[in-house]
Amino acid sequence: MAGLRPNAGPTMHDVAAAAGVSQATVSLVLNSAPGSRFSDDTRQRVHDAVDKLGYRTNAHAKVLREGVAGMIGFIGDSVATSPFAGAIIEGAQERAWEEGLLLLTVNTGGDKALEAASLDTMLSYRVAGVVYAAMYHRRLDVPQALAGVPAVVLNSQDRAGKLPSVVPDEVQGGYAATRHLLEAGHTRIGLINIESLDSELPAAVGRYAGYEQALAEFGTEVNPSLVRFGQGGEIHGYQHAMELLTSPHPPTAIFCVNDRTAWGAYQAASELRLSIPNDVSIVGFDNQSTLAPHLRPGLTTLELPFVAMGRRAVDILLQGAEPDGRVELMDCPLVERKSVTHPKEMP
Amino acid sequence: MAGLRPNAGPTMHDVAAAAGVSQATVSLVLNSAPGSRFSDDTRQRVHDAVDKLGYRTNAHAKVLREGVAGMIGFIGDSVATSPFAGAIIEGAQERAWEEGLLLLTVNTGGDKALEAASLDTMLSYRVAGVVYAAMYHRRLDVPQALAGVPAVVLNSQDRAGKLPSVVPDEVQGGYAATRHLLEAGHTRIGLINIESLDSELPAAVGRYAGYEQALAEFGTEVNPSLVRFGQGGEIHGYQHAMELLTSPHPPTAIFCVNDRTAWGAYQAASELRLSIPNDVSIVGFDNQSTLAPHLRPGLTTLELPFVAMGRRAVDILLQGAEPDGRVELMDCPLVERKSVTHPKEMP
Repeated sequence: MAGLRPNAGPTMHDVAAAAGVSQATVSLVLNSAPGSRFSDDTRQRVHDAVDKLGYRTNAHAKVLREGVAGMIGFIGDSVATSPFAGAIIEGAQERAWEEGLLLLTVNTGGDKALEAASLDTMLSYRVAGVVYAAMYHRRLDVPQALAGVPAVVLNSQDRAGKLPSVVPDEVQGGYAATRHLLEAGHTRIGLINIESLDSELPAAVGRYAGYEQALAEFGTEVNPSLVRFGQGGEIHGYQHAMELLTSPHPPTAIFCVNDRTAWGAYQAASELRLSIPNDVSIVGFDNQSTLAPHLRPGLTTLELPFVAMGRRAVDILLQGAEPDGRVELMDCPLVERKSVTHPKEMP
Repeated sequence: MAGLRPNAGPTMHDVAAAAGVSQATVSLVLNSAPGSRFSDDTRQRVHDAVDKLGYRTNAHAKVLREGVAGMIGFIGDSVATSPFAGAIIEGAQERAWEEGLLLLTVNTGGDKALEAASLDTMLSYRVAGVVYAAMYHRRLDVPQALAGVPAVVLNSQDRAGKLPSVVPDEVQGGYAATRHLLEAGHTRIGLINIESLDSELPAAVGRYAGYEQALAEFGTEVNPSLVRFGQGGEIHGYQHAMELLTSPHPPTAIFCVNDRTAWGAYQAASELRLSIPNDVSIVGFDNQSTLAPHLRPGLTTLELPFVAMGRRAVDILLQGAEPDGRVELMDCPLVERKSVTHPKEMP
């Protein structure tokens, strides 16, 4: 059909046909309508068809006609240089560009003067709003000047409870990790956390709460002799896993609250000549692209949904970002690889 | 002294005193004057003193007074989401901010329509220049519109040989890696490359050339039986290291042309019950922050100078970025950890 309308370019109908989905699906995927849920595969096929056909939305056509795009400000503490959180920028920019907007990005490294100057500049360039992003999930104080513009806190929460925020659902992630092990038949599930529970770190507190919740759902409770508190490095994973695995009644599975801790647990298992997953199952958290797929065996872990979070923050801005203090939790999907199987002797 | 001039803020003299260097050094470090060379330690002390004292240059004072900063455009293919190249943005932004300029950053993911719209927008906002950055070192075609503005290619080279560019010195890096092993007393030095030599990848070709050059300087030449060509993954490092280390006359050291290949070589050594560095020394390349310091023993490797490259690209822009086709090579420093010692039997 595109051949008959040489000047009009591909339509949404063409994209739907190429992706093998309905036009409504194309529209919902491209507009990230809240509440609409599609599989990664469906989303990917739509985006692939858009790329292949060179489909442009009205917003793009306007930018191409007028030669200038509007902007959204994006202030990050160290997001661009954190090895993984950069995907947040990818998601935010992708969603902004679907509306014909570009990101004006500043990485402040925590420099408050740079932050203030960046904000002034963004406001003077009349950005449509500002995304205020952090490299890891925490509670933080937002700059006063954000009060004058639609603003969203991304990967952290406004300590004052005013700005809306988008964060990973740490409790759901910890729950999914533990439930995956319970469903494989494990009942003695160790946990190596990345900080103590009186930490302010939502990852440490929330993932533990999810672990507790999943155990409770299976009619059991936390056994303190199976719980350890490290500091997030592989050396702590190694030391605590050594202790757990050489104890008189060792766990058959360990939930390591980040991938680096899991890497340490792999080293301990290797030193003890224990096979993963046959002697001990391991689940990590973070799905670090430089680590989790490269361990032997590949690490089953939870993914931090950086791209989806970046997209959602821009969605909220585009909807006006009312300062209602809401905290939107984004699911951390389970990524299955080869580090989990059922325990040797079923209890 | 600052106490006597409460409204004036700290001076360059105060910074020099706090850093324990001369005022000239402070000025040269902060202005990244070409040709001036300071150790990382000196640079760090100056920047720490600047941060601690809250020292502001005239450029900052102007921004704070006028409430709006000028901008430099930064177009990257996937720089922000590449796990490590994000440090390029950090360097560029740090240097721009010293002159009171902000970066308008766009990550195009290779989307040419986004790239064109971004450039139009940057030009309409009258950016002082554009940095065109790539996530890995290669030769690329730059967009036509860059001809209308001062522009620098970063971490890649303009195939047309017009725009100035800043890239890592791959030959020097390969040379430094090999020389480090030669100086430790090794003569049978294996090499596991990341692509074949007819590749277009400057890292594969240049690091090999440096290996050849260092061997020649020590009066020896490349022994083809010690050279392997993988594809950059740890599985290739593992397979090729297994072959090399189980051959009748194995190398006493292996230069792995990236850190992931070195990780595979570690796995092979572990499986063969060979100790690193006592049985075999290993050098990597890239200094990946999530990998090299965490291997056991810590991996001696070469660092890609991302921050320095980002700073230098902005320097060149600020100097007008004449389209003279020059390619500036930046040193890849050796980062010594624990994976190299002298060979067991000196030859």
